[in-house]
Amino acid sequence: MRDSNSIFLHYITRIIIGLCALMMVPATSWAEAREFDMSIEDTRIVLVGKRDFHTFAFNGQVPAPLIHVKEGDDVTVNVTNMTTLPHTIHWHGMLQHGSWQSDGVPHATQHAIEPGDTFTYKFKAVPSGTMWYHCHVNVNEHVTMRGMWGPLIVEPKDPLPIEKKVTKDYILMLSDWVSAWAHKPGEGGIPGDVFDYYTINAKSFPETQPIRVKKGDVIRLRIFGAGDHVHSIHTHGHISQIVFKDGFPLPNPIKGDTVLVGPGERYDVILEMDNPGIWMIHDHVDTHTTNGDKPDGGIMATIEYEEIGNDYDFYIWKDKKFVPDFYYEESLKKGFGMHNSEVFKGEFIEE
Amino acid sequence: MRDSNSIFLHYITRIIIGLCALMMVPATSWAEAREFDMSIEDTRIVLVGKRDFHTFAFNGQVPAPLIHVKEGDDVTVNVTNMTTLPHTIHWHGMLQHGSWQSDGVPHATQHAIEPGDTFTYKFKAVPSGTMWYHCHVNVNEHVTMRGMWGPLIVEPKDPLPIEKKVTKDYILMLSDWVSAWAHKPGEGGIPGDVFDYYTINAKSFPETQPIRVKKGDVIRLRIFGAGDHVHSIHTHGHISQIVFKDGFPLPNPIKGDTVLVGPGERYDVILEMDNPGIWMIHDHVDTHTTNGDKPDGGIMATIEYEEIGNDYDFYIWKDKKFVPDFYYEESLKKGFGMHNSEVFKGEFIEE
Amino acid sequence: MRDSNSIFLHYITRIIIGLCALMMVPATSWAEAREFDMSIEDTRIVLVGKRDFHTFAFNGQVPAPLIHVKEGDDVTVNVTNMTTLPHTIHWHGMLQHGSWQSDGVPHATQHAIEPGDTFTYKFKAVPSGTMWYHCHVNVNEHVTMRGMWGPLIVEPKDPLPIEKKVTKDYILMLSDWVSAWAHKPGEGGIPGDVFDYYTINAKSFPETQPIRVKKGDVIRLRIFGAGDHVHSIHTHGHISQIVFKDGFPLPNPIKGDTVLVGPGERYDVILEMDNPGIWMIHDHVDTHTTNGDKPDGGIMATIEYEEIGNDYDFYIWKDKKFVPDFYYEESLKKGFGMHNSEVFKGEFIEE
Repeated sequence: MRDSNSIFLHYITRIIIGLCALMMVPATSWAEAREFDMSIEDTRIVLVGKRDFHTFAFNGQVPAPLIHVKEGDDVTVNVTNMTTLPHTIHWHGMLQHGSWQSDGVPHATQHAIEPGDTFTYKFKAVPSGTMWYHCHVNVNEHVTMRGMWGPLIVEPKDPLPIEKKVTKDYILMLSDWVSAWAHKPGEGGIPGDVFDYYTINAKSFPETQPIRVKKGDVIRLRIFGAGDHVHSIHTHGHISQIVFKDGFPLPNPIKGDTVLVGPGERYDVILEMDNPGIWMIHDHVDTHTTNGDKPDGGIMATIEYEEIGNDYDFYIWKDKKFVPDFYYEESLKKGFGMHNSEVFKGEFIEE
Repeated sequence: MRDSNSIFLHYITRIIIGLCALMMVPATSWAEAREFDMSIEDTRIVLVGKRDFHTFAFNGQVPAPLIHVKEGDDVTVNVTNMTTLPHTIHWHGMLQHGSWQSDGVPHATQHAIEPGDTFTYKFKAVPSGTMWYHCHVNVNEHVTMRGMWGPLIVEPKDPLPIEKKVTKDYILMLSDWVSAWAHKPGEGGIPGDVFDYYTINAKSFPETQPIRVKKGDVIRLRIFGAGDHVHSIHTHGHISQIVFKDGFPLPNPIKGDTVLVGPGERYDVILEMDNPGIWMIHDHVDTHTTNGDKPDGGIMATIEYEEIGNDYDFYIWKDKKFVPDFYYEESLKKGFGMHNSEVFKGEFIEE
Repeated sequence: MRDSNSIFLHYITRIIIGLCALMMVPATSWAEAREFDMSIEDTRIVLVGKRDFHTFAFNGQVPAPLIHVKEGDDVTVNVTNMTTLPHTIHWHGMLQHGSWQSDGVPHATQHAIEPGDTFTYKFKAVPSGTMWYHCHVNVNEHVTMRGMWGPLIVEPKDPLPIEKKVTKDYILMLSDWVSAWAHKPGEGGIPGDVFDYYTINAKSFPETQPIRVKKGDVIRLRIFGAGDHVHSIHTHGHISQIVFKDGFPLPNPIKGDTVLVGPGERYDVILEMDNPGIWMIHDHVDTHTTNGDKPDGGIMATIEYEEIGNDYDFYIWKDKKFVPDFYYEESLKKGFGMHNSEVFKGEFIEE
């Protein structure tokens, strides 16, 4: 069965594979060394209305700055703790090959960073995908309701075909808060707590923002379970294609209209914008759409098409002041690096 | 390799494919226009024992009537609000191509329907699958504990082979209720609420019903997360094959014995009835099998085989009065249309 | 197209398939009959610190003994109830073909086993995989917070290739407890309860144990949702490959770093130990990492590599007394049978 033709084909194939391998930019030219300085600050943020919280904020903002790097980059982060309580940073999803003491777990991989101290994390950005970082000290308080989390996006060397179609990229970090502890830093996040505020990127509806698109866009929603509860994110009018879990491609994308997201998980959902209108995106856990004891709040936002506009007398966001970068969509376009975002800045608290 | 035989085969194949395409009933003859009138009424229903609730009931029933249409049908629903509070209907799962103002979201796609008013929804039934409809005003109260939800089944033009094997089709809508608000319409569904009743199709065990089968049946359970909580549905004695999520076929069916269902999600589970006996189907969230502070209630039912019967001295449902259509199994056989169901009728409340 | 070569190949293939079928050990020599005696006893166990609970313990231990059998085995279990309340055993996952009255559900498949009585369960161990057993009387109390659950591992005749690579096998059963009912047997597990302790195999951190590995190991974590809550298990520093759900192989393994486990579900996660260090494995539901109102407890443990050791001044388990078999890893090596485990023994309570 192996005639001269098939042998020829065999060699040609090997040559092509070889050429392709060469064309896959060699590691030295793709990956880079990056170094960032980060502080942790006592701040006050407002979730919605008058509902404010004392937070421990990376670079003074909640959520924390976008860290956007390339797969294989050598990342160094110098973290200085300016608060009055100990902290660490866990780089959730990073494999930390050969760098376990940069994994950021107090009592397991390091001493917590005491107030005033600086600690340096060094790790290789592997694997690629939608990752995050958060404090690992007293997670029940610091992660749950002090805003100590932010996105770490590791750009793949070799993106999936479907990723290449994406025209707009958004980050949605979901959290749950307990008002009773709002102004008691160092306490809270315990069994029996009543979680009464629910947020996307630390804001509750109507303080969230519309996602503005036009027909033909392909949007990627990177949804993070950054808090204590399970969320069930329903997008109206479009097919939600779940493509990645925790940064890894699913064996096959899963279609649906509702995405269940557990604490710590991330799902990347890709949707084709083929249906001009105003569309809700919200948590289908009904009590997560309240602010305290009031309905119509929490984890809700809309998708707005420019073809349709927003000038409808029934539309609650008819006169909404649009704040760009609320979903990090501007930061994500800035190229690689650490990007602070004015929109997430809190008010510094002096001791 | 391409001899006259293979060329002949090639053409024959193309002809057969062509014929098949023709036989796939063209849209004009398959899809139809359907119009339904629906009211919303103040009613009182009983979940179990003396535990009653004030509900806002579509056509006076909880759950709401089955709407059973064909993929591509043009559906018109005229909704008249006979209650004292505003409502809408969101057609959960419908893509609403070109009809975003029929999506049923107050403050985003329409003004809520005020008491006494009528609103007309018009949309194409796309995509096919297990969909549902529910109010979108104050979902934390109206969906969570006023019974404003019902099934919308869109029959596919081109069903999967496994769907064609189904002999019996059942609908199970799961909900969670807070007694404290039972008789306070317009209030409730807020953080801190104690959810103390759990239901399938608005009844708690032992007021649920057995699923009656015989050996050889292939049953389809359409399980809906219609309430506020995550449910974990365990079926005894059979393999649960999870085939659809939110109406869409999974890339590959997933086998298990327990199906986790989040709020808003639907899973279609197909099981071969090959094992005569009496079998439990219940929520494995243990506290969801209580009624108030009493065990042995909530989300529980049985599968009964006719080969086995129910005449066992240990069987709690030995003398159970069987109520057909509790899982819409009779309504689903009635052909396309909107089917009210006596079994779900509440008692009307006069103001 | 069918020449003498292809016909030859055809017959050779059929002969090979025939030989393979013969080599798949015939049922008579693979499967065996096994009989076990089991008691249920009133005991007291300690979750962590001084937090003890009254439990109803299979063979006096919580979790219950490992039952380790082969696919197709004929299993007989004689259960004697030595407590003062009725119980049963449900063999969760077993199909019970032709043995529905051994399914262990009170009021549906048997009368509950009264105090002092013995009941015999007989069933064939089918299908293979990670199964479990638990009481089915008042599950909201007996399963949720009386410790009535244990692992039932059914070894497959025909393991997957990935299973054969496993060098170390661990069982992690996750539960949630309500202190208010700790010493009130016969009560508890009702809506409104405050779940304030969270355990792996009935211990809360720091009373859990490290998982000790060396580079090159391939570990299998069999994670059980044995309690009332959803857990989100995050493993640091390694890729979690989710291979089985409820004992069944997934159509394709799913990669991630966090595994959402609902009540009743089991996930088998396989991880390659390729990254020496000390690594956390914990619930990412933040409040599940507390003990009562104190942080740093609940569902947390570590993976320790022997290459790294544990002699680090920052490591909380630097001087930890290692207790083998905490994850049933020793019991799983003992061959088929029922294996009691000293590490899980409670203190007997005399009436």
